[in-house]
Amino acid sequence: MKQTIGGKTTILRLELKTEIIHFGQLITVITENGGDVIAIDVIQTGADWTVRDITVITSEQSQVDAIVSRIKDLNGVRVVHVSDRTFLLHLGGKIETKLKVPIQNRDDLSRVYTPDVARVCMAIHEKPENAYKLTIKRNTVAVVSDGSAVLGLGNIGPHAAMPVMEGKAMLFKQLADVDAFPLCLDTQSVDEIVSTIKQLAPAFGGINLEDISSPRCFEIEERLREELDIPVFHDDQHGTAVVLFAGLINALKVVGKSIRDVKIVVCGVGAAGIACTKILLAAGVKEVIGVDREGTLVSGVTYSNDVWNWYAQHTNPNRMSGSLSDVIEGADVFIGLSSGGVLKRADVERMAPRPVVFVMANPTPEIHPDEIEDIAGVIATGRSDFPNQINNVLCFPGIFRAALDCQARTINEEMKIAASQAIASVVTPQELNKLYIIPSVFNQEVVRRIRKAVIEAAIESGAARRIPREFRTN
Amino acid sequence: MKQTIGGKTTILRLELKTEIIHFGQLITVITENGGDVIAIDVIQTGADWTVRDITVITSEQSQVDAIVSRIKDLNGVRVVHVSDRTFLLHLGGKIETKLKVPIQNRDDLSRVYTPDVARVCMAIHEKPENAYKLTIKRNTVAVVSDGSAVLGLGNIGPHAAMPVMEGKAMLFKQLADVDAFPLCLDTQSVDEIVSTIKQLAPAFGGINLEDISSPRCFEIEERLREELDIPVFHDDQHGTAVVLFAGLINALKVVGKSIRDVKIVVCGVGAAGIACTKILLAAGVKEVIGVDREGTLVSGVTYSNDVWNWYAQHTNPNRMSGSLSDVIEGADVFIGLSSGGVLKRADVERMAPRPVVFVMANPTPEIHPDEIEDIAGVIATGRSDFPNQINNVLCFPGIFRAALDCQARTINEEMKIAASQAIASVVTPQELNKLYIIPSVFNQEVVRRIRKAVIEAAIESGAARRIPREFRTN
Repeated sequence: MKQTIGGKTTILRLELKTEIIHFGQLITVITENGGDVIAIDVIQTGADWTVRDITVITSEQSQVDAIVSRIKDLNGVRVVHVSDRTFLLHLGGKIETKLKVPIQNRDDLSRVYTPDVARVCMAIHEKPENAYKLTIKRNTVAVVSDGSAVLGLGNIGPHAAMPVMEGKAMLFKQLADVDAFPLCLDTQSVDEIVSTIKQLAPAFGGINLEDISSPRCFEIEERLREELDIPVFHDDQHGTAVVLFAGLINALKVVGKSIRDVKIVVCGVGAAGIACTKILLAAGVKEVIGVDREGTLVSGVTYSNDVWNWYAQHTNPNRMSGSLSDVIEGADVFIGLSSGGVLKRADVERMAPRPVVFVMANPTPEIHPDEIEDIAGVIATGRSDFPNQINNVLCFPGIFRAALDCQARTINEEMKIAASQAIASVVTPQELNKLYIIPSVFNQEVVRRIRKAVIEAAIESGAARRIPREFRTN
Repeated sequence: MKQTIGGKTTILRLELKTEIIHFGQLITVITENGGDVIAIDVIQTGADWTVRDITVITSEQSQVDAIVSRIKDLNGVRVVHVSDRTFLLHLGGKIETKLKVPIQNRDDLSRVYTPDVARVCMAIHEKPENAYKLTIKRNTVAVVSDGSAVLGLGNIGPHAAMPVMEGKAMLFKQLADVDAFPLCLDTQSVDEIVSTIKQLAPAFGGINLEDISSPRCFEIEERLREELDIPVFHDDQHGTAVVLFAGLINALKVVGKSIRDVKIVVCGVGAAGIACTKILLAAGVKEVIGVDREGTLVSGVTYSNDVWNWYAQHTNPNRMSGSLSDVIEGADVFIGLSSGGVLKRADVERMAPRPVVFVMANPTPEIHPDEIEDIAGVIATGRSDFPNQINNVLCFPGIFRAALDCQARTINEEMKIAASQAIASVVTPQELNKLYIIPSVFNQEVVRRIRKAVIEAAIESGAARRIPREFRTN
């Protein structure tokens, strides 16, 4: 059967008057408009009518629209419903609660609930760290957003953000067996978000912040990190930084340069750009230069955005100024976290030999990879349809798996760098090449290696409250 | 095998030097101290030692203590660990997250997460009620406590309250397929609790408040009911009231009296006592008299507790005053939600013929059922070791199942009364007798009947935003 790989699956529910319309006419209409019929289900049938679900694959939405419009013009057909597979997958949400042990009789009930549960409550009351042993805190993370900066969609609010957070919870569970619960907050006040998250923290062993707009995300994360004794991790910042640095470790191997010698231009000094810069500085990069809409950030200038003032003071040691084109001269690495089209081929031509170009703007990269394929040493993007996708999914499941297993107080810079190195290590020297610097999100080695490296870093840096059995030296 | 039903299961992990101690000696020590060995598992074995898990049933904790102490005195034995089955059941918590569909490849990933999830987000953004179709809101309830009044344990705080809330989440799922998530808040400020719950509401189709101390619980619930468009239900109040009223409906059938004619004394005017009184008044009871520590509540007196002022104005039409013994004269029903031992046989003797006595103080009832068995028409308690247990577990799963299925804005008095009638109806006229007025929590008919009756009441009273297919008239 012909089937468009990666195509769009749509299910048409049609009521057909069997005396007026023949099924063959329908198939013709669908096929003529670029659809493949891959399944037919009879839903209900009467004397002279029938309701059927026709599953159709097309390569784009416009074909579905054309098919539906043509079908509506036919006599004897009523379009009951048009639904696509993505929407069907979302019906009623994507996650559910599961009991670890069933309650089968009164004896079970008395253990998991009153009266016997009281002894468990008191054991925690007497020794609060028992919460990690006797409640879901041991394995559960809150995925929290306020819906203010969801994907590339902007400020769409908490209800509309839920499908993303549910998807994230699925990935936590499937990839790292972390139980995660999505919470989208009906407020965009920094104070309210901070106090709400603080107050709901007892159930959780960690907080994954998600899709909160900049610069609010900095203050929210910073205050929560100070006030909570469980890890708080804004994935848009740190997840991106960890995976990007993992890619950079391997990219520099491909082009034969050392992290201590490279000059890096970061284009787009928002939440992700700042987090990436921090991990690069912590990893020993000496020259990082940030460029945003106002040009190159340079100390001495006072910016209205306070984090830019911090940024200017901690980067750009040679006080370069001007536009992106001015400062990119001789750079070894370009990291784009800005918007489509801002990088030109002429800019890349002026970089050092074998330039590393990470163009992660979504959905349109800073420059299309095809335009510089011949002159770049390594190219990475944020998209799955080019080689070398820098995808946060590589980081958050494993880093929280590690943090939960060692009951980490925080996720510090040492743990993030360890995670980057672990991700990079999954690509073997034999496999490494300019088109393969970063493993697939489905590579099961990723979570295992991150877990080991991050727990070791947590123990060494003093962030771990528990040393898992296999990490004990005696 | 002899086995103490409902006894305490303990697992002793012992390291034995096989040359020094014989296994028979151990068994003797355990048996002599009232323990039954029901299982032995070999965990590890060396040349001259072995580690074994001995599962022992005893009728009380003191026997376990004696056994452990005697074993420690033996030569050649080391007690590695003593754990009981209840604690073992709680290790790592009692619930987990489950994916409804697995993510098996990049195609799945792109549907449940970026980029395709964006279309689902936008469908909700454009039409907010789609949140009920496309997110977990449709089937998910938050079980929220601040840990201020947990079981009979008092103010033990949020971490220690978690096992109860997790148990509740299990019951929601197992009995009514409602996904529930436990949240214990790290604040006891009314304002903070209200704002936190409001802010986390988008993920949920309902809020089950639990174990929040009185009188704070009234204001919290009232404000949330006003400000949220999903049901808010304080189970300690309304769950108790619904099940109690269900029991009363059947008890009055047993003694041949009508709800419109009875005089009812409510002893203990706290959260549950007030909610019970409200449902009785809504159901048409004309004479309810409330008694608390300061005696009978009567209008004209000003109480420091504001809800008592409301209570006095809405009850006790004949303005009776005095102690419990004064007002119980001629009462048909006693409802005790106070503390152990406050009711005397002499009081019950002065009630009307065939008195209905609900003594629900836990763990010690207002009077021991044995003391009045010969003179009471019907007796009910809150305990599982007497007949007629008034147990909230009979109500909350079914009432939320109904509320979610009709996307109820609220759970109103009509819906609660419908739930009571549904619970009462599960006991058939043939089965009904003074020792069986209320069904078991494991009776599967309970949730089914509550769901039907409550959805009908929600539709009729205007609380339903959706009419489930089987309730549509055309």
